[in-house]
Amino acid sequence: MAVKKVYGTPACPATMRVLASMLEHGLDFEFIYVDLKAGDHMKESFLSLSFGQVPVFQDDQDLTLFESRAIMRFISHHYPKPGKEQVYEAPKEQGIVAAWIDVEDHQFDPPASKLRTELLEKPLNGMSADKQVVAEAEANLARVLDVYEERLKDSKYLGGDKFTSADLTHLPNLYYLMKTPVKRLFDERARVSGWCRDLLARSAWAKVVDMVEKI
Amino acid sequence: MAVKKVYGTPACPATMRVLASMLEHGLDFEFIYVDLKAGDHMKESFLSLSFGQVPVFQDDQDLTLFESRAIMRFISHHYPKPGKEQVYEAPKEQGIVAAWIDVEDHQFDPPASKLRTELLEKPLNGMSADKQVVAEAEANLARVLDVYEERLKDSKYLGGDKFTSADLTHLPNLYYLMKTPVKRLFDERARVSGWCRDLLARSAWAKVVDMVEKI
Repeated sequence: MAVKKVYGTPACPATMRVLASMLEHGLDFEFIYVDLKAGDHMKESFLSLSFGQVPVFQDDQDLTLFESRAIMRFISHHYPKPGKEQVYEAPKEQGIVAAWIDVEDHQFDPPASKLRTELLEKPLNGMSADKQVVAEAEANLARVLDVYEERLKDSKYLGGDKFTSADLTHLPNLYYLMKTPVKRLFDERARVSGWCRDLLARSAWAKVVDMVEKI
Repeated sequence: MAVKKVYGTPACPATMRVLASMLEHGLDFEFIYVDLKAGDHMKESFLSLSFGQVPVFQDDQDLTLFESRAIMRFISHHYPKPGKEQVYEAPKEQGIVAAWIDVEDHQFDPPASKLRTELLEKPLNGMSADKQVVAEAEANLARVLDVYEERLKDSKYLGGDKFTSADLTHLPNLYYLMKTPVKRLFDERARVSGWCRDLLARSAWAKVVDMVEKI
């Protein structure tokens, strides 16, 4: 039988998003490590359509997908867990989940990714963080988290009362930011802080962290 | 009977994306002009969850949605046209459409929006374009269009052989870029150029242009 495959770089947030989605849905897959620095992403012809980016997902049914959030959407709709955990069937609830996935993409991800780069990646490469970039990104992230704090008054999770892709999509950057002083922006907001702890404690996420730290 | 509402600013690409989707699906709606410069977006309480951005969509069934691409996804799945034109039912095809919507968002939109700002908005406001920004954005857009030219060898549209949201989402920026010298990047690529003409000739799009030019 053909096997599902995920091509990616384990420490990259987009790859981690797809790994989390696969593991949350209990799917078996083969992980193929793509070493971007070694130019691996140029070797596989299908990567030309993914703009040379990882992750790329290959389903066992002749389907190759790229864009981490599109892969995550596909998995939750095509491989729902027994009992339909994590995916809403009704169009209205699906629409709300889709909106919060785009909020993560357009509002949360830009400042969160900047802070990850400045506070974790640069120091790892012997560079120091740009204080002005950090201050601006922190201010932007704080504004986003204020909206999240409001939203979490209405529902336990961002997409509704059950955990969905709208929450899952945040996990890679939440994981990284908890290792930085930016953690205090989460701690200062009671609902956001509880939401964040809840997500990071999921057993599927523990497996992703385990994979990332092993490689 | 309650009526669907679109809150927005007509010349804004995100608002135009939602208008195009509503009109493509033959939906009746009320358009509420939100004057961002006059601070209108601070007056409606629901805009606090939309990060003060337009468009916002209110369905007649107690649903308020923001994020233009999420609204577009919701409309195509919840209000498919008779004969299911424009939306694929099979998960595989839906996944491919979802991936190309994200390609527009992450690859096409950034250089296209930069070029629109530099070549159309700035001159309108008495400023001149930054030549270096234009050159970089043109080079990025050219690389994206090379991938589109390849993709359009396999299928008539980006998401498959029928017109879907994966194409529609490009319309606002295509419309604006055709008014600039960047048009040549499209003209130089036979399939991209045909695809672009085909999209801009859709009757629903003509109605959007009509609305935008009237207000």
